[in-house]
Amino acid sequence: MEFPSKLIENAVGELSKLPGIGKKTALRLALHLLKAETDTTASLAEALAKMRFEITYCQTCHSISDAEECSICANKLRDHSTVCVVSDIRDVIAIENTAQYQGVYHVLGGVISPIEGVGPSDLTIDSLLARIPDSEIKEVILAISPTMEGDTTAFYLSRKLRDFEGVHISTIARGIPMGGELEYADEITLGRSIVDRQRQVR
Amino acid sequence: MEFPSKLIENAVGELSKLPGIGKKTALRLALHLLKAETDTTASLAEALAKMRFEITYCQTCHSISDAEECSICANKLRDHSTVCVVSDIRDVIAIENTAQYQGVYHVLGGVISPIEGVGPSDLTIDSLLARIPDSEIKEVILAISPTMEGDTTAFYLSRKLRDFEGVHISTIARGIPMGGELEYADEITLGRSIVDRQRQVR
Repeated sequence: MEFPSKLIENAVGELSKLPGIGKKTALRLALHLLKAETDTTASLAEALAKMRFEITYCQTCHSISDAEECSICANKLRDHSTVCVVSDIRDVIAIENTAQYQGVYHVLGGVISPIEGVGPSDLTIDSLLARIPDSEIKEVILAISPTMEGDTTAFYLSRKLRDFEGVHISTIARGIPMGGELEYADEITLGRSIVDRQRQVR
Repeated sequence: MEFPSKLIENAVGELSKLPGIGKKTALRLALHLLKAETDTTASLAEALAKMRFEITYCQTCHSISDAEECSICANKLRDHSTVCVVSDIRDVIAIENTAQYQGVYHVLGGVISPIEGVGPSDLTIDSLLARIPDSEIKEVILAISPTMEGDTTAFYLSRKLRDFEGVHISTIARGIPMGGELEYADEITLGRSIVDRQRQVR
């Protein structure tokens, strides 16, 4: 694609480096910014740069934070005896939005993936293991996506966590999602949802 | 959606103002930038701000340009007797990519749309009409998308352009696109493609 201006070519080039944004979408975004007020672009550029350069991570749970300790870890009202282990900050936001969880988190920063060269030492696993002794932690919930890499990570973690006596390990429930149709569910999910069936309380 | 950091909330807010980007995509983009090198964000923010604040428009054809006259208008080898009128800079790029057009352009900056409050005076129509007298222009091609607003704009323009004697007005060919199946074409397109059929050269 040839551009009538070097400036727009650079902007399109940088925008199309973002995931899921190709050259055509990037051009549409660039032309949108050109049509909008200059303020729109200025505040977008500033917000991005500010986020990248000023963001800090919670020293306890490795989630994004504006301070040394994130608002969840600093909250005395939350249940600090339950830690939910997730791979990504997005998962923290997703679980927080359910308003069903009152414990704290631990963000691994990814999953073990030999293909992409991510080993246990690239994740915050050591930090998680160091968090448990001399703490009030009684349960670790493994809330990792059930992919090949996710299951490997969960298996590795449960092996490591077994050494801590008095700490329960659990995983999030697998089964048919709400509104899901039985006949369209894959066999493994359907099979597990029968094995792990829950008795109704009368 | 609740965010663990004001910085990320601002960045997501600004990103989701872009067309076609919702909160979830914006969050994915923001987290991508956080994971990538700081350089990525710095050069993206700089490219966007530079584009918005330093870009100029060609004084002749109103396309994007790095100088007072764009590279197409300044090119002596192009056919300055043919002007292709388009609504948007994107159309210039699209036509240039076909490598089938050797004339010059005129970018209207939109189409007449009473619903969105865009009248003829909001477009560069006066500038187009002022370009024609005392120039070598012999043909004006109306290459405007065949939507309701586009057709209104084309009709308005052809009424105005009729006053100039010796200037031909043409529109881009309508018909079945390459690779298109006859049976799936809409009736208006198919009807026009028969009315405007082209005799083969033996």
